[in-house]
Amino acid sequence: MKKVGILISGRGSNMESLLLSMRERDFPCDAKVVISNIETASGLEKAKKLNVKTEVINHKDSKTREEHDEKMIEVLKKEGVEIVCLAGYMRLLSPLFVREFKNKILNIHPALLPAFPGLDVQKKAVESGVRFSGCTVHLVDELCDHGPILLQSVVPVFPDDDSDKLAKRILKFEHKTYPLALKLFAEEKFEIEGNRALLKVDNSEYEEIVKKLMWNGE
Amino acid sequence: MKKVGILISGRGSNMESLLLSMRERDFPCDAKVVISNIETASGLEKAKKLNVKTEVINHKDSKTREEHDEKMIEVLKKEGVEIVCLAGYMRLLSPLFVREFKNKILNIHPALLPAFPGLDVQKKAVESGVRFSGCTVHLVDELCDHGPILLQSVVPVFPDDDSDKLAKRILKFEHKTYPLALKLFAEEKFEIEGNRALLKVDNSEYEEIVKKLMWNGE
Repeated sequence: MKKVGILISGRGSNMESLLLSMRERDFPCDAKVVISNIETASGLEKAKKLNVKTEVINHKDSKTREEHDEKMIEVLKKEGVEIVCLAGYMRLLSPLFVREFKNKILNIHPALLPAFPGLDVQKKAVESGVRFSGCTVHLVDELCDHGPILLQSVVPVFPDDDSDKLAKRILKFEHKTYPLALKLFAEEKFEIEGNRALLKVDNSEYEEIVKKLMWNGE
Repeated sequence: MKKVGILISGRGSNMESLLLSMRERDFPCDAKVVISNIETASGLEKAKKLNVKTEVINHKDSKTREEHDEKMIEVLKKEGVEIVCLAGYMRLLSPLFVREFKNKILNIHPALLPAFPGLDVQKKAVESGVRFSGCTVHLVDELCDHGPILLQSVVPVFPDDDSDKLAKRILKFEHKTYPLALKLFAEEKFEIEGNRALLKVDNSEYEEIVKKLMWNGE
């Protein structure tokens, strides 16, 4: 069992799907702690209800990003955390933090990276006129929305979509994609080669995974 | 019936799929001419076999891009061409040509634009570690691999893919996507708004289209 810590700043909907998955039999991870930088994040209540330890580490109590990140590192280390999942954590991590958990930090982004990094990405996708968008679970490196891609999901963009409608369709797939990526990552099914994560499964297993991650009318 | 001209430089595999589609009943287009800038392009033979008029306009016979493009415009105009399809035409079009057929030039690109414009895109996709790629049919504007997106197709990238394997999987979908985009375009189902092409079909029709354009194990 791999020990997992989750960082949030808000409602933590992806946190919740990760925590629910970790309760399932055979899921190779154990949720040790949820840390929020915002005291009023509603995700904290959800974590408590699922009997997961929570901590608030308010970034305003630190003078620098590094000082704040060091406080988080201390808590994560104390809990023996081996994998850190970002779930709507709205702050950039310092290089210090990224180095401390090198290739052990997962993030989810609501677009098909490398298309549409940054913020307001569902709006950007709708306005750009792409026919498909989706989400990306990737390892975090020192660049924003960058690092080896673990899994992606694909959904269509409908002609009458606005960014909210598209965001909702993508979010459904985020809740499938993130737990599956964490599971495969904890099972050490990814081999990291530079900026690429090779998935060590055979083609028929890959096909099964891929089909789960493609919209099919739902 | 909309009159179509096709520009090629090589084997013309997308040209062939367009020409075969245009032979089908109810397809609202008529192929008037195939122009190649390369005399030895094997696509010329394929077009002749399908009884489509061909012309060679060697770019080396012109001093400037504009001069070459003017020769092409002359042929296309003489044939009454209303829609120009680029099918592996390996030269940039001059602004002159793009203005002459403004929002009437279609191109296909073997990636999910805006990701991976330019050349060697299947290699770039494999090396970047994305889990999905595909193709994009778009209207041509004065930028490279840019302009309103008409349709896109999605295929997975397999762990053991090299650029050839991925290119083959995408090409299959190019041959579906390009004729479908041309058909919808000729039927005036796209409304162009700035850099966006809105597809004027209802959601259930859109769903049918989208499902055809998503890989499903083939």
